[in-house]
Amino acid sequence: MNTYLIHLANKYMNENKRSLESLLKPRSVAVIGASRREGSLGNKIFNNLLESDFKGPVFPINPNADDISSVKAYPSIFDIPEPVDLAVIAVPAEFVLEAAEQCGLKGVKALVVISAGFAENGREGVNRQRDLASICRHHGMRLVGPNCMGVLNTDPNVSLNATFSHVFPPQGDIAMATQSGALGLVILEYARNLNIGLSTFVSVGNKADVSSNDLLEYWRDDPNTSVIMLYLESFGNPKKFARLARSISPSKPIVAVKSGRSPQGSKATASHTGALATADVAVDALFAQTGIIRVDSLEQLFDVSDFLSKQPLPRGNRVAILTNGGGPGALAADACSAAGLELTPLSDETLAGLKALLPVRASLANPIDITDVGASEYRGALSLLASDDNIDAVIVIFIPPVFACPEEVAVVIKDLAPEFRRRGKPMVASFMGQRGCVPGTTLPAGAAGVPSFAFPEAAVYVLARALDYGRQRQKQKGTIPEFPDIDRQKAKEIVDSAPDGWLQPVEVFSLLECYGIKALGIRSAANLEQATAAAQEIGYPVVLKIDSNTIVHKTEAGGIILDIGSPEELQTAYDGLMKRMSIAGFVTGVRGVTVQKMAGEGIELIAGVIHDAIFGQLTLFGLGGIYTELFKDSTVRIQPLTDVDANEMVHSIKAYKLLEGFRGSPPADIQAIEELLLRLSALVEDLPRIQELDLNPVRVFAAGKGYAVVDARILLAGNKQHANSVPESVAG
Amino acid sequence: MNTYLIHLANKYMNENKRSLESLLKPRSVAVIGASRREGSLGNKIFNNLLESDFKGPVFPINPNADDISSVKAYPSIFDIPEPVDLAVIAVPAEFVLEAAEQCGLKGVKALVVISAGFAENGREGVNRQRDLASICRHHGMRLVGPNCMGVLNTDPNVSLNATFSHVFPPQGDIAMATQSGALGLVILEYARNLNIGLSTFVSVGNKADVSSNDLLEYWRDDPNTSVIMLYLESFGNPKKFARLARSISPSKPIVAVKSGRSPQGSKATASHTGALATADVAVDALFAQTGIIRVDSLEQLFDVSDFLSKQPLPRGNRVAILTNGGGPGALAADACSAAGLELTPLSDETLAGLKALLPVRASLANPIDITDVGASEYRGALSLLASDDNIDAVIVIFIPPVFACPEEVAVVIKDLAPEFRRRGKPMVASFMGQRGCVPGTTLPAGAAGVPSFAFPEAAVYVLARALDYGRQRQKQKGTIPEFPDIDRQKAKEIVDSAPDGWLQPVEVFSLLECYGIKALGIRSAANLEQATAAAQEIGYPVVLKIDSNTIVHKTEAGGIILDIGSPEELQTAYDGLMKRMSIAGFVTGVRGVTVQKMAGEGIELIAGVIHDAIFGQLTLFGLGGIYTELFKDSTVRIQPLTDVDANEMVHSIKAYKLLEGFRGSPPADIQAIEELLLRLSALVEDLPRIQELDLNPVRVFAAGKGYAVVDARILLAGNKQHANSVPESVAG
Repeated sequence: MNTYLIHLANKYMNENKRSLESLLKPRSVAVIGASRREGSLGNKIFNNLLESDFKGPVFPINPNADDISSVKAYPSIFDIPEPVDLAVIAVPAEFVLEAAEQCGLKGVKALVVISAGFAENGREGVNRQRDLASICRHHGMRLVGPNCMGVLNTDPNVSLNATFSHVFPPQGDIAMATQSGALGLVILEYARNLNIGLSTFVSVGNKADVSSNDLLEYWRDDPNTSVIMLYLESFGNPKKFARLARSISPSKPIVAVKSGRSPQGSKATASHTGALATADVAVDALFAQTGIIRVDSLEQLFDVSDFLSKQPLPRGNRVAILTNGGGPGALAADACSAAGLELTPLSDETLAGLKALLPVRASLANPIDITDVGASEYRGALSLLASDDNIDAVIVIFIPPVFACPEEVAVVIKDLAPEFRRRGKPMVASFMGQRGCVPGTTLPAGAAGVPSFAFPEAAVYVLARALDYGRQRQKQKGTIPEFPDIDRQKAKEIVDSAPDGWLQPVEVFSLLECYGIKALGIRSAANLEQATAAAQEIGYPVVLKIDSNTIVHKTEAGGIILDIGSPEELQTAYDGLMKRMSIAGFVTGVRGVTVQKMAGEGIELIAGVIHDAIFGQLTLFGLGGIYTELFKDSTVRIQPLTDVDANEMVHSIKAYKLLEGFRGSPPADIQAIEELLLRLSALVEDLPRIQELDLNPVRVFAAGKGYAVVDARILLAGNKQHANSVPESVAG
Repeated sequence: MNTYLIHLANKYMNENKRSLESLLKPRSVAVIGASRREGSLGNKIFNNLLESDFKGPVFPINPNADDISSVKAYPSIFDIPEPVDLAVIAVPAEFVLEAAEQCGLKGVKALVVISAGFAENGREGVNRQRDLASICRHHGMRLVGPNCMGVLNTDPNVSLNATFSHVFPPQGDIAMATQSGALGLVILEYARNLNIGLSTFVSVGNKADVSSNDLLEYWRDDPNTSVIMLYLESFGNPKKFARLARSISPSKPIVAVKSGRSPQGSKATASHTGALATADVAVDALFAQTGIIRVDSLEQLFDVSDFLSKQPLPRGNRVAILTNGGGPGALAADACSAAGLELTPLSDETLAGLKALLPVRASLANPIDITDVGASEYRGALSLLASDDNIDAVIVIFIPPVFACPEEVAVVIKDLAPEFRRRGKPMVASFMGQRGCVPGTTLPAGAAGVPSFAFPEAAVYVLARALDYGRQRQKQKGTIPEFPDIDRQKAKEIVDSAPDGWLQPVEVFSLLECYGIKALGIRSAANLEQATAAAQEIGYPVVLKIDSNTIVHKTEAGGIILDIGSPEELQTAYDGLMKRMSIAGFVTGVRGVTVQKMAGEGIELIAGVIHDAIFGQLTLFGLGGIYTELFKDSTVRIQPLTDVDANEMVHSIKAYKLLEGFRGSPPADIQAIEELLLRLSALVEDLPRIQELDLNPVRVFAAGKGYAVVDARILLAGNKQHANSVPESVAG
């Protein structure tokens, strides 16, 4: 990117940020459609703005009322004697365009359109939404929605509740964007019930203008936000999302639920890569590569975000469990074991201290079961654990006792929380059977900055996710290597001159050669004479393969003959192959044969790329041969790959042990495979017409001996470059 | 089993049932250690019995008080003028034995010993517990505990709260046993908060007498119980547990959490079978084979049990989701997809009905998003779904609305629940953000017999588990086949005459032959001459293997030479082998070589058995070769195997596709493999000295061509028969 482009990008980002401030920190708000009628959205929103004690004037717009909730009403936005930063529109869809146009003329800076009846609602709605967006663009107004539940900012200097939810959540440092307005209502209620503080909340609705990406950009620099929660149903621009997430997640965690896994997964593709790289796998890859914490449910979204907002990240996976009951300790221990958290032995000092402190019936192994004692023993044990260097985090479990006092234990946790924080050790509690609040008291466990869960499994879950996130943050940033030997010019010529469809085998191998990807020598032959000449040139033993644009899986079709050692064998093989193809009815589309050098012994791998309509190019790597399908032992990344990505891909498959040298076999050339993946990444980045690419099998040899691509297929599409993004889907 | 033994077993079972009635339905109760002092266990328990309105007299025993809570107290159990069925003992451990002895003399029928200080507490405690059990046995008293939190029966004719929990849960048909007293407190509180009804509840504590097995037997015939919940930490007698569970689960579901997964998993074993068949895998196998529903957390234990107690089992996996918000519908759809529940298209009638009923903005695809409408639309939609034969179950999601009335929707669900039940279709709800109770009302969603969850994922989870359970119930009961050709006499001789340790290879193969398990011909040879003679006899090509009792993994040690075609090749191979062993320092323990027929092409499998200290013999089956370790693609069952078990084992591995004939290869002889597993089961059932048995690899050929065991090892232990059970561990 040249400096001018960087300048433009920065300018855009600054503008985005400034314009979102009019939305989230307006100095004045108008409600178009404010109403006296109880039970109407316009009434609810207007009263919410008053009740949240918004720090600025709120103007109701209603041509049929003089005042609403004792506030002077105006017939139209033009009648308001002052400037208006934000207008909330809650009139029927057919009046929205006119209202928006008037806002534009008045100089309003941002709109929140609550009204439904837009792109979620048929052809007419789609057109209406397009017109609304165009009005906003024309007047330089930002637009949230339409079809959303509003925006909210808990900053006491703003105190904005421009939603129709009756809940104004407590102030906090978690920002949230939701693509489902309905869930927004649940989210706000949940946040208030569990005393989870939010900074800002935006229901993005149909995303006609403001998207999650815009909000990410805003929250990156928002001093009031330290954790970002996303509920996503679709991606508008995954490339931009990835770029933003990469830049934010090292400093502010992003926790996300992505729903709508099921329908996309059924997309039909023609190659093994295509079958293995589904859209949901792509979401996993996108999140993992950019450091986003993916959770499966709203409950986990809250649990993890709450923890990250209150507690430091664990430095390692060594956990101590402190409990007053063996059963819950055992449940927590099982959950730790399943989540990769280790119950380490305590230090000698801690053990000696606990022994002096606790009754003999207590169990000092980890989990520490202090049995039915009271708050002072909890205090003593926690003090010891705070200074024990053998542990990175503590889970405190407390069973509602018959006589002892939960409030006292809650106070102990509150008192000791700062000491744990000072030492960089997270603490998480389970006051069993209770969520959020300590029973019988108004003291919320969370008020001490220590999240508390009804069941110990949830405490373990958040700790494990925080550990993953911490590790991800510490990971080396990768770079995209340059390969000076790549012949881009020739590669472009090959692709430019080819029609849509499967590229001819010889061209496939030429293309790979341009990018320094090593394949076995291959020649095309239209008849037996050409085949014999080719084999002579390459050297025996050779492999003969049918060359056809209709047969996709050659092995199953009996279209491959291996280990041909002489011209005589070649003749027999050629005749047999042609006969078989003719009997099987595969004559149409057969161009002839290819002759290829027979590969040596090695482990068979697969590498490939597909082009996904939403995510762009996805690179896949895995074990090859029949095991590809049998065990689905493969991994996927979004493009482009960094050296760290390539390294992780190779290490993340189960068959990695095989590559390392398994049961006496020599280690494989892992470095060469990583380079192959990086070169493949460069290839598909340069050549967007590649729709699918399948290197299958790739045979990898012993360390230092490299690899050989044995078979390869490339599917081209679209004579023009593919757009990387598609129209946004509509939020539910 | 002969008729006398059956008679004895029945007699025992009837006695168990009768004696547990004294415990759970006593006509009178004494509390030894009843106290005036608030905050003491004896005070709490005595008052709980009074407050639960127990239907019979409750006698406080306390030598230092005339009356307790206005009830006349007695100095000792002897002073009570009437018979006492149940005595609850809550005195310090050192006074328990005397109290128990007095109860025995008085003719008390059952004891609940709350006091701690027994087997959970060192050597002295272990002895004390042994003495306590012996006193109870001597007097024919049943004993719950010691170190427990008591027993409880909600039957209005009994109304017994002999626990120190302040909670008496609502009456219901779920029975519960817990091995953790601490969790018992949480469980009762949770049950009450969510209005989940219990029939009886027993905290089994240290299980000195009454175990989960005894309770299972009791609940099997208890008309008040239709669902059984277990919290287990250890198994006393897994064989009995399995037998009971098999007999109960077809009529009453058993839902269980088994904790303590982690520590047992680390047991070291010498074979592949041993490494793959961990104790936790055994628990999974035990539960799966006996129809127990295993859940991972207390929360799931309640959720699933509550559903099973209130709703019919789904007949199939076709689900409709009815929601008033797209977001939660999408989350539920994702969860369904992950859990194997299918969102089927609705019938034309339903679609037409919905179209007439709902606004155009509603989405009629499944999930059905009815959008922001009210109770009457819910009613209409549910009526249509009730009679739609395309669906087996319904999930109703309701987002707390701004204006609409959750109570009204709850009433709709209540009204329609009987219609769904009549048609055998389960219904489950998620009133989002709320658990159990419909917000703003005292009407519990569960009161309509429809469980409701705070998040839709939980609703999907219970439905999926209920479906699994229903399928399990419909499964054909297996039989254990007889093989008349088995030579038990000879097999016994081979094992009886062998010392502990690895059995000699030739004997291994003889033993397999006794059970009709087909192995490749094998001969022992102490030197080259014998090896040559053996090869001549078997026929070339042969395989030469080192015969040693110190080398476990022969392939890695270079101790196997394949495909030897002639006497000359044999000589070279023999010399090379011996030289290699000598260089590698494997001379000690080398007995010579074995000569075996070279096996034909086939898929390599593994079958084996280990003896687990707790679970007895576990049979393992999986893909063989290096993939055994790489992909851990194996499955485990407890012994003995039925034909259904064997069939399921073969079908349940991922590599089953390979056996079915994959990518053009012929199907393998699956029937022969199933028979191999059943014969193996017979073998290890007969010969309990077998500690580990490893058939690895077993090569299976094309259908009709059978299989051949290529290599096999058997480890013998203990010259006497192994006991199948070990002392119980102590409950937490």
